[in-house]
Amino acid sequence: MRVSVIGGSSIGPDTAAVAEALGETLATRGHTVVCGGLGGVMEAVCRGAAEAGGETIGILPTDRREDANPWVETPIATGLGHARNALVVSNGDAAIAVAGSHGTLSEIGLALAHGRAVAGLDTHDVEGVKTVASPADAVDYVEREVGTTR
Amino acid sequence: MRVSVIGGSSIGPDTAAVAEALGETLATRGHTVVCGGLGGVMEAVCRGAAEAGGETIGILPTDRREDANPWVETPIATGLGHARNALVVSNGDAAIAVAGSHGTLSEIGLALAHGRAVAGLDTHDVEGVKTVASPADAVDYVEREVGTTR
Amino acid sequence: MRVSVIGGSSIGPDTAAVAEALGETLATRGHTVVCGGLGGVMEAVCRGAAEAGGETIGILPTDRREDANPWVETPIATGLGHARNALVVSNGDAAIAVAGSHGTLSEIGLALAHGRAVAGLDTHDVEGVKTVASPADAVDYVEREVGTTR
Amino acid sequence: MRVSVIGGSSIGPDTAAVAEALGETLATRGHTVVCGGLGGVMEAVCRGAAEAGGETIGILPTDRREDANPWVETPIATGLGHARNALVVSNGDAAIAVAGSHGTLSEIGLALAHGRAVAGLDTHDVEGVKTVASPADAVDYVEREVGTTR
Repeated sequence: MRVSVIGGSSIGPDTAAVAEALGETLATRGHTVVCGGLGGVMEAVCRGAAEAGGETIGILPTDRREDANPWVETPIATGLGHARNALVVSNGDAAIAVAGSHGTLSEIGLALAHGRAVAGLDTHDVEGVKTVASPADAVDYVEREVGTTR
Repeated sequence: MRVSVIGGSSIGPDTAAVAEALGETLATRGHTVVCGGLGGVMEAVCRGAAEAGGETIGILPTDRREDANPWVETPIATGLGHARNALVVSNGDAAIAVAGSHGTLSEIGLALAHGRAVAGLDTHDVEGVKTVASPADAVDYVEREVGTTR
Repeated sequence: MRVSVIGGSSIGPDTAAVAEALGETLATRGHTVVCGGLGGVMEAVCRGAAEAGGETIGILPTDRREDANPWVETPIATGLGHARNALVVSNGDAAIAVAGSHGTLSEIGLALAHGRAVAGLDTHDVEGVKTVASPADAVDYVEREVGTTR
Repeated sequence: MRVSVIGGSSIGPDTAAVAEALGETLATRGHTVVCGGLGGVMEAVCRGAAEAGGETIGILPTDRREDANPWVETPIATGLGHARNALVVSNGDAAIAVAGSHGTLSEIGLALAHGRAVAGLDTHDVEGVKTVASPADAVDYVEREVGTTR
């Protein structure tokens, strides 16, 4: 399935390691990563997925595909600014949030509004988000909620 | 100034009373209400503002102006679905959240991402949102943050 | 009713005079001007309408209300870039095109796709657009097509 | 490179054959097809490309990926309605129009506004569009304009 991974563009090495491991786990289990296509969590999760042979889609706020991080296989330029956040989550079957600030909070809200299951790794403590302890737990949760292992 | 009022479309009478009082307070102080144009908090705040002679703008998710509640003076049809939430908050100088669920949470995140001050009345307890006790306190807060009484 | 006026941002004095007269005619007959909010035809039609006491709405491609020309009474910031063209035409009950280049062509196509009547003043010769000779003829046409004089 | 193929959703067998041959030619020369993801020209060009082993991206007006025609490899749900037309053309390096009506006209305008080269096969006769006689000529034109054979 497709999983939207949402999180901040400005992160430290620990969060990057978590996001990269998440990307690897998703790819290994056959899932496609959908994200906002820029840096930070978005880049780390794409790197992890791409190095494990997985597919990555980056839905950019700008109208320039070249703004995507180098691990995005399929960049989609929107030119919509923050309004593109709605597309990041509507293009996944479920979402996993990693850390993140206001933009991530908006994506959590949009994902829940779209009826998507959302797992959270060290992110906003919001009703409706399942807090999990590891990338593997996050993927377990969204797989179970979507009712599929693919 | 313009103040985005965000909140749920399905509310009880107590929340409606708060939203209506908020609309009246905003109008009395010369501010324009911007909202999502539909029911619940959106309708109550528009009714309060309109009955006090204030201006109301409703930015709708559909592409039909006639979907606006009857108290919206200037409906804007977008046809953007949830992506219109970004426009609701970017068209205000500050935001006030009243109760609300996932959509409201997304608008809080988008408002903060746009650098807007956000006051909260019985809504999500999120870092960056100033929790206030009354409509008057909410308007006081956003006026002070924007640095104007108009 | 609301009439979307579409046209180029870079125009000469003759086109500006036509657009200004069009704005005046629309306002005098009680219609609201909807446009893209920037310069050229958009500014001239708003000036004509505003000076005749009419209402003007400017739906901007940027997310900054201050980008609107000074004759826009109600600016709407979208941050959507060219995608906002769809909102310019969907927010009118009919459209009038004045001169214009590629962006105007896209708005003509979008207006027709939305089922709006379109009158054209010295603009693209496209099937479905009624070519007219004067601002008054343009307003006559859209009033007749929409079936109202208001 | 990526080529946006734009055209009507309601077409006859001759137009479908042209669109399918266009998809095959694009795929054979190593290009990715970007389109609106629905039926008619969009489906025929995707079928032609997919059967030749090429990649296809469908940028949908709805927020449901399952609305894509079966030959779309990477569906992108937008929920933007007609506003998604801007994304269809901004995600290609050039555009080729096949027949089509108002929506296609809007996409031609948007493509030209984005500075994209546009070839036309039996479509709107608009300044800026290079009318060509065959799918191969269309691909020749956009390759030459973009300055690449990939």
